Amino acid sequence: MKTRAAVALEAGKPLEIMEVNLEGPKAGEVMVEIKATGICHTDEFTRSGDDPEGLFPSILGHEGAGVVVEVGEGVTSVKPGDHVIPLYTPECRQCASCLSGKTNLCTAIRGTQGKGLMPDGTTRFSMSDGTPIYHYMGCSTFSNYTVLPEIAVAKVREDAPFDKICYIGCGVTTGIGAVINTAKVEIGAKAVVFGLGGIGLNVIQGLRLAGADMIIGVDLNDDKKEMAERFGMTHFINPKNSENVVQDIVEMTKTPFDQIGGADYSFDATGNVKVMRQALECTHRGWGQSVIIGVAPAGAEISTRPFQLVTGRVWKGTAFGGARGRTDVPKIVDWYMDGKIEIDPMITHTLSLDEINKGWDLMHSGESIRSVVLY
Amino acid sequence: MKTRAAVALEAGKPLEIMEVNLEGPKAGEVMVEIKATGICHTDEFTRSGDDPEGLFPSILGHEGAGVVVEVGEGVTSVKPGDHVIPLYTPECRQCASCLSGKTNLCTAIRGTQGKGLMPDGTTRFSMSDGTPIYHYMGCSTFSNYTVLPEIAVAKVREDAPFDKICYIGCGVTTGIGAVINTAKVEIGAKAVVFGLGGIGLNVIQGLRLAGADMIIGVDLNDDKKEMAERFGMTHFINPKNSENVVQDIVEMTKTPFDQIGGADYSFDATGNVKVMRQALECTHRGWGQSVIIGVAPAGAEISTRPFQLVTGRVWKGTAFGGARGRTDVPKIVDWYMDGKIEIDPMITHTLSLDEINKGWDLMHSGESIRSVVLY
Repeated sequence: MKTRAAVALEAGKPLEIMEVNLEGPKAGEVMVEIKATGICHTDEFTRSGDDPEGLFPSILGHEGAGVVVEVGEGVTSVKPGDHVIPLYTPECRQCASCLSGKTNLCTAIRGTQGKGLMPDGTTRFSMSDGTPIYHYMGCSTFSNYTVLPEIAVAKVREDAPFDKICYIGCGVTTGIGAVINTAKVEIGAKAVVFGLGGIGLNVIQGLRLAGADMIIGVDLNDDKKEMAERFGMTHFINPKNSENVVQDIVEMTKTPFDQIGGADYSFDATGNVKVMRQALECTHRGWGQSVIIGVAPAGAEISTRPFQLVTGRVWKGTAFGGARGRTDVPKIVDWYMDGKIEIDPMITHTLSLDEINKGWDLMHSGESIRSVVLY
Repeated sequence: MKTRAAVALEAGKPLEIMEVNLEGPKAGEVMVEIKATGICHTDEFTRSGDDPEGLFPSILGHEGAGVVVEVGEGVTSVKPGDHVIPLYTPECRQCASCLSGKTNLCTAIRGTQGKGLMPDGTTRFSMSDGTPIYHYMGCSTFSNYTVLPEIAVAKVREDAPFDKICYIGCGVTTGIGAVINTAKVEIGAKAVVFGLGGIGLNVIQGLRLAGADMIIGVDLNDDKKEMAERFGMTHFINPKNSENVVQDIVEMTKTPFDQIGGADYSFDATGNVKVMRQALECTHRGWGQSVIIGVAPAGAEISTRPFQLVTGRVWKGTAFGGARGRTDVPKIVDWYMDGKIEIDPMITHTLSLDEINKGWDLMHSGESIRSVVLY
């Protein structure tokens, strides 16, 4: 069949809207009509050419929501008409990682997914001249119709609006999951969030959900303060107004009883390796945990003195918020529908597929939190 | 009173055996007759002058065992005649750290201890001309008699031999504790230990105690293999015979079901920041934990790509094996007396106080695992 898609033909070039060929789902695969998709920094990382593993031509997009329209042989967990969210981290429930109970990083299709291919080693997309077009993060939600492995779709309730829950496919789950799955923040904790963009705001609402007492946000842009407060931030630091952010956080978190100070938990949502170090070092001696969420530039390295760890700080990271997609994503959709979390204020812009390149401008200017493309 | 002690008069010089003045215990303090003390790399780190926080003149030594001979005002938890192990990590049971239940790093006397002083800001030791001599790590076990805060002694059973249990004051507890308190290794785990010296051997026997399936030891010296096997090591790697230690460990830990590979836990007992990185990177994607035990040279930094953490590895450290001294040390003495752990084969040399400087030679040549000074 044919479908309209925004194709990344070359690194650094705007996406081109065109009609492409899409083969139907093979065994174990499903075809999904994408109804809405968010535009995420990770898409831009690849589009720009900064991603050393980026492949072209490809159809980007990994934060979508839609409806199953066709299933391949052997597919049992979803059927046409089901509402689904594509998962760039699949959940096969059969590999050593899934069965470990210790990680969400399913490895069933890791090899092919990283190469822009379906599990059988081929693509379903092609140009009108037959040139294959690579899949992206196993999702390719910048196409009106896409094909995914069955293990890479989460079935969700049908009354949830696509233009909001698409964000659960990446940003919402990553931010909230970092708090509840990776850090396992407890009621009364003191936490710091570096970077108040789309991920940072979701970390903040995750902390609110977890019952944190102190939620300190750090951002170079004062304009981020208002929205972050709306999601639960209790204190704000602009590093431009601080001589030493780490020391400021240590001071802010001291109590009459605890004169050591430091955050119980910190989260880096900037992707800047220098900030990652600050995030570690501002945590409490003895038990502070710092979670890296942001994607650093290729080749960048984090560093610190080992003394920071020997005196009890823990450095960890998270991918997709430690969430097992098919199991956890439907729950997060429920939380949204039940009002436990908010998404609407973060969807600041909606675009048509034809306007998708505007999404990068809105992102770079800091004007948008999330732009969503509606098909 | 007077006591014999080995005094570090200047950085880099041999210790000098002499008679020094020792004041009796003040309120909240106890005087202990040291019966035996181990010689640890940390003592050498300070003696040599490499420790930027080293103070002179001082009486080093922090791995001892002895008998309480006098108690100051208000001391209730020990009395003369009690057998005790001095604690460089005290346990006040009243500070924010002790009461957190999340760390062993008691902060009650941190400020003065780091300055070589008793909690009231003075020293109990002095030279014959009255010059104060600094305490070391709050212990100063290279003196036949020493004074410690009450919160810095662990009362232990009286039938345990001083010349063996002194090692529980540092090396044994650090190694075993890293496994059971910090990493919380579970039965069936696969683990790697970098550095098969005194700490590494205790990590190995901690892993055996914890029921680990695979205990891989890594050391540049083939001579370390035999003793490490005696303590439970199942596999040995000499990096001189390996092109890529990380890759070798990943391969060794693969199973037919798990083709990703990597250690569940790794421990650095070398103090080398490059090895610390290998220790992190050889752990399993998704859940591997790496624990830093070794003390790195002043100014040295660890580094890695954040991707290592984002894909699920956890970097942490341990001090005194995460053990709460007054609570946990007596248990470890019981384990030794019950035959659950071994110490005797690790005490390779015993020296008199007059021979203490030989201990450094035995350490540097790799001839000793532990030298113990008997008073």
